[in-house]
Amino acid sequence: MITASEVRVRYAETDQMGVAYHANYLVWCEVGRTDFIRALGMTYAELEKQGVMLAVADAQLRYHASARYDELVRIETRLLDVRSRGVTFGYEVMRVDAPGATTGSRLATASTMLVSMTTAGRPVSMPAEFRALLDAARTRPD
Amino acid sequence: MITASEVRVRYAETDQMGVAYHANYLVWCEVGRTDFIRALGMTYAELEKQGVMLAVADAQLRYHASARYDELVRIETRLLDVRSRGVTFGYEVMRVDAPGATTGSRLATASTMLVSMTTAGRPVSMPAEFRALLDAARTRPD
Amino acid sequence: MITASEVRVRYAETDQMGVAYHANYLVWCEVGRTDFIRALGMTYAELEKQGVMLAVADAQLRYHASARYDELVRIETRLLDVRSRGVTFGYEVMRVDAPGATTGSRLATASTMLVSMTTAGRPVSMPAEFRALLDAARTRPD
Amino acid sequence: MITASEVRVRYAETDQMGVAYHANYLVWCEVGRTDFIRALGMTYAELEKQGVMLAVADAQLRYHASARYDELVRIETRLLDVRSRGVTFGYEVMRVDAPGATTGSRLATASTMLVSMTTAGRPVSMPAEFRALLDAARTRPD
Repeated sequence: MITASEVRVRYAETDQMGVAYHANYLVWCEVGRTDFIRALGMTYAELEKQGVMLAVADAQLRYHASARYDELVRIETRLLDVRSRGVTFGYEVMRVDAPGATTGSRLATASTMLVSMTTAGRPVSMPAEFRALLDAARTRPD
Repeated sequence: MITASEVRVRYAETDQMGVAYHANYLVWCEVGRTDFIRALGMTYAELEKQGVMLAVADAQLRYHASARYDELVRIETRLLDVRSRGVTFGYEVMRVDAPGATTGSRLATASTMLVSMTTAGRPVSMPAEFRALLDAARTRPD
Repeated sequence: MITASEVRVRYAETDQMGVAYHANYLVWCEVGRTDFIRALGMTYAELEKQGVMLAVADAQLRYHASARYDELVRIETRLLDVRSRGVTFGYEVMRVDAPGATTGSRLATASTMLVSMTTAGRPVSMPAEFRALLDAARTRPD
Repeated sequence: MITASEVRVRYAETDQMGVAYHANYLVWCEVGRTDFIRALGMTYAELEKQGVMLAVADAQLRYHASARYDELVRIETRLLDVRSRGVTFGYEVMRVDAPGATTGSRLATASTMLVSMTTAGRPVSMPAEFRALLDAARTRPD
């Protein structure tokens, strides 16, 4: 399963180089991840209501090209790995010419590894229902 | 009582106009407010531990000049009004040439009115101890 | 003319009160303003390419209720005033239950006054074409 | 050469987990990098005035523990690699109990690879003067 999210680059997200500041890509990945979990049939907000948080433990980003103000950016999100206490997402970030367009130039490639924690910060297994949704998503064709 | 806080403009805070993005001034005011409360002899973090939050209900900003990357910015914070369920802070934001310098050009003038709320979001009187510190600060010479 | 823009509250935009941090409303207003200018038939990016920037000179925000993570927020943008060297926008920010829904609870009311400047920071009259689009929008029914 | 920078966690930087949002660590690394370059005897702002920008091409972050509102965070910055068209910085981010304290718990480890570009976005060798400062820093004892 791959989900696609779209954001338009905000003026607030640019820096004086005239392009989107690099830390915003982590925010866009989070937008992609939120949409991916929603597409699973659950929301991350529900997960937190059950007392489980997914905290980013590792992030890797490779920047290929720059995004500019008002450009439309698509984030494609997929699962890279699922474990009992964590999950790793992969992201392709690209510029697109119009909403829903299927082609565009690649801006960045990223991955984030998240660990499952209680609200008190203790590592904990992901809830069974959520784990099952993740496992089902791994085998679902794109 | 007036407190002075200093921040250096981060690259992340600039936008493609080459100046600090206007919303960051609200963040700098929050830095000033945090330091003001600390100077009272209490921290805002302690206030929250007591179950009381100060939520911004009104904000007014007037921008006079721009701040640029790596410039040193001073925020002078003072009390404008204290009520049982809220407090209003005033801010002068200026560019300074060196840490601790007493002169500089004015960047912005702002005020924020904060209301006292429980963690559940209900309006509530500010804790007596905090209120007393605010009242004492009003009469303290600068 | 009134334009409507929608954003979903990002996790990055929340703070430890569990709600959207107040400075983000200025960013959402900027999203609304960008869409308003696009609806005029011009983009703000084009305006900057002509060497004219609109810098925020004054901002006023009144917060009524909080927005939470993953909630859908609509920004309704309209013109409040147009002058030769500046323009004032008004914003109604509200929570909506679904994309395109016409009802929802009010989160904030805001206005920003922008001044027209050259890229060197000198005040300048807004380009005639842009001014004409603004004037036409003032008389267009909503 | 290792430089140390200190930031205090801003309320704006927290998220609803009650900790500093993970993307802010990239901003703190940028603060560390700015201070490192200043310690070399040049500022990044001067480099940009010469028409050369350092754009982040790769970022890697490993998060060990969380930072909370109002905590003092130190970023230790060092050089990992210097090439003709780029430079890689390494960062240790830690919580400290007081300004200038030499001990504290480790929050994150990160690195960013930056490439030298003209303002038009073309890859270019770093200016000789800047390169010489970087080379000298590599052999300077910490």
